[in-house]
Amino acid sequence: MTVRNIIKQSNVTLICTTDDPVDSLEWHKKIAEDSTFDVQVLPAWRPDKAMNIEKITYLDYIGQLSEVSGVEIKTFADLCAALSARMDFFASMGCSVSDHGLEYVMYKPAFPEEIEEIFAKRLAGDAVTREEELKFKTAFMIFVGNEYAKRDWVMQLHYGCKRDNNTPMFDKLGPDTGYDCINNYAPSSEIADYLNSLNANGKLPKTIIYSLNPNDNQAIGTILGCFQDSTAVAKIQQGSAWWFNDHKTGMEDQMISLANLGNLSGFVGMLTDSRSFLSYTRHDYFRRILCNLIGNWVENGEFPAEYEILEEIVRGICYNNAVNYFGFKL
Amino acid sequence: MTVRNIIKQSNVTLICTTDDPVDSLEWHKKIAEDSTFDVQVLPAWRPDKAMNIEKITYLDYIGQLSEVSGVEIKTFADLCAALSARMDFFASMGCSVSDHGLEYVMYKPAFPEEIEEIFAKRLAGDAVTREEELKFKTAFMIFVGNEYAKRDWVMQLHYGCKRDNNTPMFDKLGPDTGYDCINNYAPSSEIADYLNSLNANGKLPKTIIYSLNPNDNQAIGTILGCFQDSTAVAKIQQGSAWWFNDHKTGMEDQMISLANLGNLSGFVGMLTDSRSFLSYTRHDYFRRILCNLIGNWVENGEFPAEYEILEEIVRGICYNNAVNYFGFKL
Amino acid sequence: MTVRNIIKQSNVTLICTTDDPVDSLEWHKKIAEDSTFDVQVLPAWRPDKAMNIEKITYLDYIGQLSEVSGVEIKTFADLCAALSARMDFFASMGCSVSDHGLEYVMYKPAFPEEIEEIFAKRLAGDAVTREEELKFKTAFMIFVGNEYAKRDWVMQLHYGCKRDNNTPMFDKLGPDTGYDCINNYAPSSEIADYLNSLNANGKLPKTIIYSLNPNDNQAIGTILGCFQDSTAVAKIQQGSAWWFNDHKTGMEDQMISLANLGNLSGFVGMLTDSRSFLSYTRHDYFRRILCNLIGNWVENGEFPAEYEILEEIVRGICYNNAVNYFGFKL
Repeated sequence: MTVRNIIKQSNVTLICTTDDPVDSLEWHKKIAEDSTFDVQVLPAWRPDKAMNIEKITYLDYIGQLSEVSGVEIKTFADLCAALSARMDFFASMGCSVSDHGLEYVMYKPAFPEEIEEIFAKRLAGDAVTREEELKFKTAFMIFVGNEYAKRDWVMQLHYGCKRDNNTPMFDKLGPDTGYDCINNYAPSSEIADYLNSLNANGKLPKTIIYSLNPNDNQAIGTILGCFQDSTAVAKIQQGSAWWFNDHKTGMEDQMISLANLGNLSGFVGMLTDSRSFLSYTRHDYFRRILCNLIGNWVENGEFPAEYEILEEIVRGICYNNAVNYFGFKL
Repeated sequence: MTVRNIIKQSNVTLICTTDDPVDSLEWHKKIAEDSTFDVQVLPAWRPDKAMNIEKITYLDYIGQLSEVSGVEIKTFADLCAALSARMDFFASMGCSVSDHGLEYVMYKPAFPEEIEEIFAKRLAGDAVTREEELKFKTAFMIFVGNEYAKRDWVMQLHYGCKRDNNTPMFDKLGPDTGYDCINNYAPSSEIADYLNSLNANGKLPKTIIYSLNPNDNQAIGTILGCFQDSTAVAKIQQGSAWWFNDHKTGMEDQMISLANLGNLSGFVGMLTDSRSFLSYTRHDYFRRILCNLIGNWVENGEFPAEYEILEEIVRGICYNNAVNYFGFKL
Repeated sequence: MTVRNIIKQSNVTLICTTDDPVDSLEWHKKIAEDSTFDVQVLPAWRPDKAMNIEKITYLDYIGQLSEVSGVEIKTFADLCAALSARMDFFASMGCSVSDHGLEYVMYKPAFPEEIEEIFAKRLAGDAVTREEELKFKTAFMIFVGNEYAKRDWVMQLHYGCKRDNNTPMFDKLGPDTGYDCINNYAPSSEIADYLNSLNANGKLPKTIIYSLNPNDNQAIGTILGCFQDSTAVAKIQQGSAWWFNDHKTGMEDQMISLANLGNLSGFVGMLTDSRSFLSYTRHDYFRRILCNLIGNWVENGEFPAEYEILEEIVRGICYNNAVNYFGFKL
């Protein structure tokens, strides 16, 4: 019942952690060098702290990032250079996937000069307005999106959450301790505009979109179709039912919507938030729900009972699609 | 076929009416004193008119409230004192539950001085701006929420309705005559912020949240979880499917969402809007839908066929939970 | 396998095309005069170009409309006169139905003088602000709505789409080539206010509301009920599941919602977007889904197994209701 044994007994091939750009990834190095454990453990890039310009701790973070990257960050261009250097390092450690926690996928474009002014204002210790925050974050997301495309990384966008809603518990336990809820403000038009802004530059990476609000399933399903191209199977994906939605109802709703509006057989399947060592069982739960859903379609005459095709679809969603999509070397 | 006989034949134990703070509750007194009718009839506190500062009739209402409460209302603090006096009176008459009809659960906090200015402006006969209205209503809701917590009353929040949409019929028949629709503007973030503002003072009452928009089920389900504590079973509840939603689809959707995200077995069940004497049958309709839903889960292997537990759950949702939650003395 | 044969073999009685107000309808004339083809082909009125004041091509369009209508358009009143003249012409060609593609159903009323100023500004070649655009479009929609009511035409409102989201493909292929998504901004309050503004004048036409966002089903269902009157069966309708939603899930959800909130048996059924000659099969698909849904209700004991009533309901939804509602002369 050691952690390593649980992982092995769960038949895990590969784990992606989520890591901050300033992380040294030393433990990834050690585990890769450890011949007694043959499960791949790769970093994933999660630069939320570099984006969240409104936070009190932002300047401290920028200081850390300067130090770790070796780039003295005095401008937004410097920030981009520092992040780029860290992405190179992450790539050298096997990273091919990013993750973003967004309030919502915003799109409020501004001229580069304005972004520099906003960043300079913040570096000088001043607070930024809500509008400046949204403009800065949009510029940040455009920069990283283009970088991911260049590196053939996957961009994961998680949104629709309002965090830390219970102040007394926050004061007692700190952030992200279970007092979060769905934020239902998420204009689909801005998601489309953001992806288009990357696409218009020819720099739209493989992208997986997750909303915490199950009402967004259909809007996401239609956004996927606007940006598919031949560079990857199901290049723009809807992520599996996430967090509050990873129960039977939520998983079924997400897969039914995806089957109606997108490409279910290209779906990379269950992959999010298995952060604890006992949570691999939820992959099994997901697979049963998937097979039950498809089985009901077949019994109901809504999908032909062609077992070879069905097997390929199910194996794809449960394993092969993710391997191909993320470009893992197994 | 008298009203009293219908109530008795429907096996009604207790009825809560909804009453305005200025109501004398004289009929409640009479019915309590009437030994020939042993169904409890308690008042519930519905102070919408005291909150709706934008209405043309607001000053008249404030005049009435001054008179009935014996508090001359010249400031917002006076208004609070008048309401508090009336709450004491309602409590003396057995009231333990409030009800609010809100456009949406807003949260636009302001300093006390600003609230006093807004109220003074309105008392002087001027109209308030939309922003002032929202600030005033937020202050009002914070005041009453804290009062409910002090008195261990239940706070019910009904929202998501746009009323009186047909002007010719309004002119003919008056308000609330069947020309209302779902208002889909209801930011979940403001609900969370409002409850947190009460909670941060340690003064969050037992609360039941009802949206007229079934799309809000999941957001509400996640808000519940942010504020539960050990002072009551399922202290923050989602109310049963309400008004336009009290049909099989709506009731099932609400209960499935609650089972996924909250605590179905702590649910206080069907309790809203049985205003006519023939509408008790809809409690029976609710119970059948509940039992059918749970029965299907059991048949489907999704809940164990443990009949004692199931009986306790069903009895709880249909009767016992409400008795305990509202603190009724039967 | 000619187009005419496919139409005949599909048992088509009548086709409505969608046509711009400037269209000469000469092909409608020819086909009506052609004794070798007995399917009625009627025009439908789609004046989007006359409303979309923000488009670069707006002045060109106004020029065309001036020419075709014989009304020199120098004011908004002139525009209305020109449209009115074209409606008379369309009516003379058998038109009894309009169609509108709206971003959302907006309601931002303004005084007539302001509308004239906005229109004059645009005619002078200046761009209008977003607020001016919304005011102008509201005035436009009020004008046409009243005109439809006078003529006993049906008003169809399609909304909830964000179009042409992929700029590179737009540059390559042009507008409306498959790069559209659901726009989830659609305040239900403005739909109700718009319909009420027509209704308050006693000039609310028969109206069919379609949202691309299936989350709007319930809000629409409740809006219908605010404006029904005795001048037509199910005068205000929710349109059948449209575009991204015309699959089994979408059609069932729309019909279940309509059955819960409105009048399913008065529904005019499947009628939208059969633009290609092979797409009549989707009417068959719709009818099977309808019958399957109702059949399940009957098997489940949720609707009585009264086959004469059921037949009338199904025939109504599949054929008769549309004939009556649109006033077609067969």
